[in-house]
Amino acid sequence: MAASIKRKKITVADLAREAHVSPATVSRVLNKRYDLVTDATVNSVKAAMEKLGYEIPESIKVKTAARKEKPTILINIPDGNLFYSEVIHGAISSAYSHGFNLLTSRSPLDAVSLPDYLQMLRQLKVAGVIVLNPLQSDLLLQINEVAPVVQCSEFDEESGLPFVSIRNEKAAREATEYLISQGRNKIALINGPAIYRYSRERRQGFVEAIENAYLTIPRNWIVNLPEINYDMAYAAICQILNADPIPNAFFAVSDTLASAVVKAAHAFHYKIPEDIMLIGFDNTEFSYASTPSITTVNQPRFQEGFTACEMLITRIMSPEITISPIFLDTELVLRETTG
Amino acid sequence: MAASIKRKKITVADLAREAHVSPATVSRVLNKRYDLVTDATVNSVKAAMEKLGYEIPESIKVKTAARKEKPTILINIPDGNLFYSEVIHGAISSAYSHGFNLLTSRSPLDAVSLPDYLQMLRQLKVAGVIVLNPLQSDLLLQINEVAPVVQCSEFDEESGLPFVSIRNEKAAREATEYLISQGRNKIALINGPAIYRYSRERRQGFVEAIENAYLTIPRNWIVNLPEINYDMAYAAICQILNADPIPNAFFAVSDTLASAVVKAAHAFHYKIPEDIMLIGFDNTEFSYASTPSITTVNQPRFQEGFTACEMLITRIMSPEITISPIFLDTELVLRETTG
Repeated sequence: MAASIKRKKITVADLAREAHVSPATVSRVLNKRYDLVTDATVNSVKAAMEKLGYEIPESIKVKTAARKEKPTILINIPDGNLFYSEVIHGAISSAYSHGFNLLTSRSPLDAVSLPDYLQMLRQLKVAGVIVLNPLQSDLLLQINEVAPVVQCSEFDEESGLPFVSIRNEKAAREATEYLISQGRNKIALINGPAIYRYSRERRQGFVEAIENAYLTIPRNWIVNLPEINYDMAYAAICQILNADPIPNAFFAVSDTLASAVVKAAHAFHYKIPEDIMLIGFDNTEFSYASTPSITTVNQPRFQEGFTACEMLITRIMSPEITISPIFLDTELVLRETTG
Repeated sequence: MAASIKRKKITVADLAREAHVSPATVSRVLNKRYDLVTDATVNSVKAAMEKLGYEIPESIKVKTAARKEKPTILINIPDGNLFYSEVIHGAISSAYSHGFNLLTSRSPLDAVSLPDYLQMLRQLKVAGVIVLNPLQSDLLLQINEVAPVVQCSEFDEESGLPFVSIRNEKAAREATEYLISQGRNKIALINGPAIYRYSRERRQGFVEAIENAYLTIPRNWIVNLPEINYDMAYAAICQILNADPIPNAFFAVSDTLASAVVKAAHAFHYKIPEDIMLIGFDNTEFSYASTPSITTVNQPRFQEGFTACEMLITRIMSPEITISPIFLDTELVLRETTG
């Protein structure tokens, strides 16, 4: 049996440098993960092998023309909130146009459930993950070791992983300032759980606007609900309206919560917008289907999902490219609840 | 090299008969798909092998204790309608409690997209599929050849595949009869696309109630929208309210569509329920978050998803069991739009 002879010791790093790609990309070519590299990349790696005198393994000499397997992207959402539906829609549009599958996993990721999750990623050979859960750096990096991660909406900058999101603080400050500009001086905040970045940042923006206008509000007018849940919001708002004094405006961090304000105001015979003004968040169907229609902060949900998926596919196909975070614009959509 | 000697020619069918399991189950044991068979089943198949004198392959003599890979169930939904969110929630509860992964695929399955879909099922080694899309028998059976299928909500009886659904015709007839019992005699139907069984059956139930009461309605009061879409519904309802005569009641096959009736009635200065009564369908957040709150047909969405997944896991783990279709009960939830 004749031993194969390498002309000299060429490493993956050498090939990567020569081909102007990452070592990970060279490994992909060597492992025939043709679903994850472009034809052009395969050719540059092969050219580098030839140039450096690296013996091209028989198995990759002929790149199979038929590329039947589509790589799979997983998008992870924490729950069934209507907000996520349009984000997923955007991600699907991007994934399908690049020939990727996209599947949704709905689960609260935490240190306890993570090992099972990582096992699933390996088992399904997931090519990349879009995470909408509020995760800290260490957990994100553990996922990223199994498959490249892009963060969407929620993010931890410390992880160094790319993300797409919005300027929550600014959006909340501007919405609150709008209520103040309409003569409202007693404003309550109906917020989600503080484990979410959006919740902490919108609270911050709200408080800034209140303080900048030299207003003071009772402590119990800032409500952190344990989840974005209509019934919980309704109960909390009724409690506020059942006391004295009552607010003359509400800022709710989700249209679902805002529609609970409409309902509760109605139950207490307060008129919207005369007695109580209201601004929601997201611009979901809940805001425009409501009677009166709800003034809201438009969040570009489709675009967030689409952008996150585009970033992820760039990470997958061209690991050597550095991707910067993206903040998308929000805007205040004026409807009947602010007059 | 000594040839291995079988004492006699034993087939998979013989083993299946002896072990009281299906031939598919025997194959699973032989292929070590321990994620898809119970310990008890493995033991009965082994006992049958010994009894019949079948040489037990070395590879399955010791069943690995560590069963790290969890089998994956895929639930397929046609779009991002809020209705599906709670169905998925139910399916997740069932899947997780049995140690299965559950992922959601959102895609319109048809003859064109099916080959890619089947390829994905094979690639991900999907253990079973829950289908909520309106598919005809031939497509369902093609999927079922790759992984066992359970139909949920939508179904084609001809396929012979198990399903869980509701009695749409009865539910629609009873809702319409309720409007008639409240003195309404001019009733319009806002319906979804006729490709859906629910749409055809609810129309049938509606028409039966109208005919049984000797009422007649203009042809254009039965609207089939191309999708469950708030904006389309709003436009169609405005057209009806902009003519003469106008209905004194609406039956909408989804709460999303019903909330468009509330909005349009408001725009035309009609009072609900005095001028126009309204019944929706599904009992989603849209119905109780609406002001006035919407009378609706409760559809047990969580239970549908949960039951479909339980049926599927039974099919996966015990292919020899025959599963009968299940119809879950609906009920009319009376709220403000019917007085």
